[in-house]
Amino acid sequence: MQSRDADHTPVTVIGLGLMGQALAGAFLRDGHPTTVWNRTAAKGESLVAQGATLAASVGDAVAASPLVVVCVSNYEAVHELLDPLGEVLDGRILVNLTSGTSRAARDSAEWASRRGSTYLDGAIMAIPPAIGTADAAILYSGPRSAFDAHESTLRSLGAGTTYLGADHGLSSLYDVALLGVMWSVLNGFLQGAALVGTADVDAATFAPVANTVIGTVTEWVPGYARQIDEGRFPALDSTLATHVGAMEHLVHESESLGVSADLPRFIKALADRAVADGDGGNGYAAIIEQFRKPSGVRG
Amino acid sequence: MQSRDADHTPVTVIGLGLMGQALAGAFLRDGHPTTVWNRTAAKGESLVAQGATLAASVGDAVAASPLVVVCVSNYEAVHELLDPLGEVLDGRILVNLTSGTSRAARDSAEWASRRGSTYLDGAIMAIPPAIGTADAAILYSGPRSAFDAHESTLRSLGAGTTYLGADHGLSSLYDVALLGVMWSVLNGFLQGAALVGTADVDAATFAPVANTVIGTVTEWVPGYARQIDEGRFPALDSTLATHVGAMEHLVHESESLGVSADLPRFIKALADRAVADGDGGNGYAAIIEQFRKPSGVRG
Repeated sequence: MQSRDADHTPVTVIGLGLMGQALAGAFLRDGHPTTVWNRTAAKGESLVAQGATLAASVGDAVAASPLVVVCVSNYEAVHELLDPLGEVLDGRILVNLTSGTSRAARDSAEWASRRGSTYLDGAIMAIPPAIGTADAAILYSGPRSAFDAHESTLRSLGAGTTYLGADHGLSSLYDVALLGVMWSVLNGFLQGAALVGTADVDAATFAPVANTVIGTVTEWVPGYARQIDEGRFPALDSTLATHVGAMEHLVHESESLGVSADLPRFIKALADRAVADGDGGNGYAAIIEQFRKPSGVRG
Repeated sequence: MQSRDADHTPVTVIGLGLMGQALAGAFLRDGHPTTVWNRTAAKGESLVAQGATLAASVGDAVAASPLVVVCVSNYEAVHELLDPLGEVLDGRILVNLTSGTSRAARDSAEWASRRGSTYLDGAIMAIPPAIGTADAAILYSGPRSAFDAHESTLRSLGAGTTYLGADHGLSSLYDVALLGVMWSVLNGFLQGAALVGTADVDAATFAPVANTVIGTVTEWVPGYARQIDEGRFPALDSTLATHVGAMEHLVHESESLGVSADLPRFIKALADRAVADGDGGNGYAAIIEQFRKPSGVRG
C-alpha cells in the first residue's frame, strides 16, 4: 500500500463508464495518485494519458490504494468483480457509488464487513460532466469515521459532498426519493405547459410563472415537514376538502381542453382517499398518510 | 356614478365570503370608497365598521362604482346575481375573481360584452390573509386597456398583480395549471418523506435536501421550456431511457419498503409511454407529448 498523504491520498477507481471516467479524472485533477481498472482496458487510455495507472487486474487495482471507489452498472456487477478477491480487501475503505436499492447497500455493507473492509455507500446526484464541480452533489452513508477520514479526498468529486448517516441504506434511499421529487416537479411543469399551451401560451412564457409557484412551495415545505414529524396536520391555509374542489377544476379543464387528465386524476384520487380517511378538514401534509401505506391498502 | 379619482377609484365588492371580505378590506385600507354586498348582509358588518357602504341590493352595489369586483362560490352564482340586472352594468368594468374554468370565463366575457360592460377575469393565487400584501398574486386576463386603466386600484389586492393577455380564459387556465404544479411538487416531497421515513429520517431532515433538488429543477425549467416551444428534445443530461432505469429503482424501493408505489408507478408508466413512442433517446421534456394527448390516447 502506498503511503498516505492528507492531501493526496491514493485512490482506485473501478469501473470506467462515463461516470467512472469522470470520477477518476476529478481525482487526477486534484493531484491524487489514481489507479484505474475496467473490464475493457481501452476505456482507461485517456485517463492513463492524464497520469492514471492502469491496473492489470481488479485485485491489483484494490491493492494499489487505501480508498477504493467502485462505480459499475449495478450491485451484481460489484459483487461479480469483488467477491472472488481474497484478503486484499482487508483494511481498505470501499466506496460504492453504483446505483442500487437501500437493501442492496445494507447487504453489501455486511459483506464488506466480513471481508474486513469499511464500507461507504454513495449516490451521485449529478451527470458525468458535473463531477468535480460545484454542481455535483454526492450523498454518502456508512460509518461517520470513514467519511470524516476521507471527506477531503471525496470532495474532489464535487462540492456537494454530503454525509447522511450511519445507515448504509440512506444514500440509495435519498437518491430515489430525490429523483422522485425531481420527476414530480418536472411532470407538474409539463402538465401545466400542456394546459396553457391550449391557449397558445408558450412554455417559455409559462416557465417563470411556474418557477415562482415552485419557489413558493419550497417555502411551505419546512412547515409541512414539521407537521409530518409531529403527526398533526392543522390546515395552515386551505383544507384538503378545499383542495379537492380545486382539483376538480383541474381535472375538468384538462378533460375539456383535450390534454391528458391522468396526472390531475391521480392528484385528485390521492386527496379523495385522504378525505375519505377523515382528513378533509386537515391541511395538505395529511396526505403523507396515503404515501406511507403500501399501494392498494385503503382506509 | 361617483366621480373617478386616479388614486381612489370607488370600487364595489360583491360576495363577502372570507376572500371577498379580504378583498374589500384591502381596498378600504388603500383609501378606495368601497361598496359591498352579500346575500347575507351580516357578513358586511365589520367592513361597514371599517368604512364600507353596504348596498341594499346587487343593483345598487353595481351602480355605486365604475369598477365592480365579484368573488362568489362559482360562475353559476355570478350569473344568478348579475343576469337579472338591467342596463346598470352598461359602462362598468366587471372584474370576476370567482374560480372557474377557462370556458366559463370566455362565456362570461361574451355575456358581459352583450350588457355593455368590460370584463376582466381574474384568478387569486393566495389565501385570504395574504390579500393586500406582497405575498398575494392575482392573475388577470381580458382587454389590456381595462387592466391598464385599473391596475393601480387592483394592485391594492396584492403586489403580484399580473396581466396575462387578452384571452379571458388565461387566468383560469394559469390558475389550475399552477395549482397542478403546486400539488405535484408537494406530492413529490411527501413521497420522498415517506420513503426516507422508513429509515427513521425526519421529514424536517429531508426537507432542506428536497428543497435543494427542487431549486435545481427550477434552473432546468427554462431550458426544457425552450425545447417544448421548439419541438425538439435532445437529451441535455440523461436520456428518457436512463430515467426509466432509475424509475424502476424508485418503484422497487417503494414496494420493498412498504410505502405507496402509486406515484412511482405513475411516473414510470408515463416515461414508458414516451419511450414506446420513440423518445427513449430524447431528454425529459419529450414527455410533454404525453401530457398533450387526451387520456387514453396512446401511441
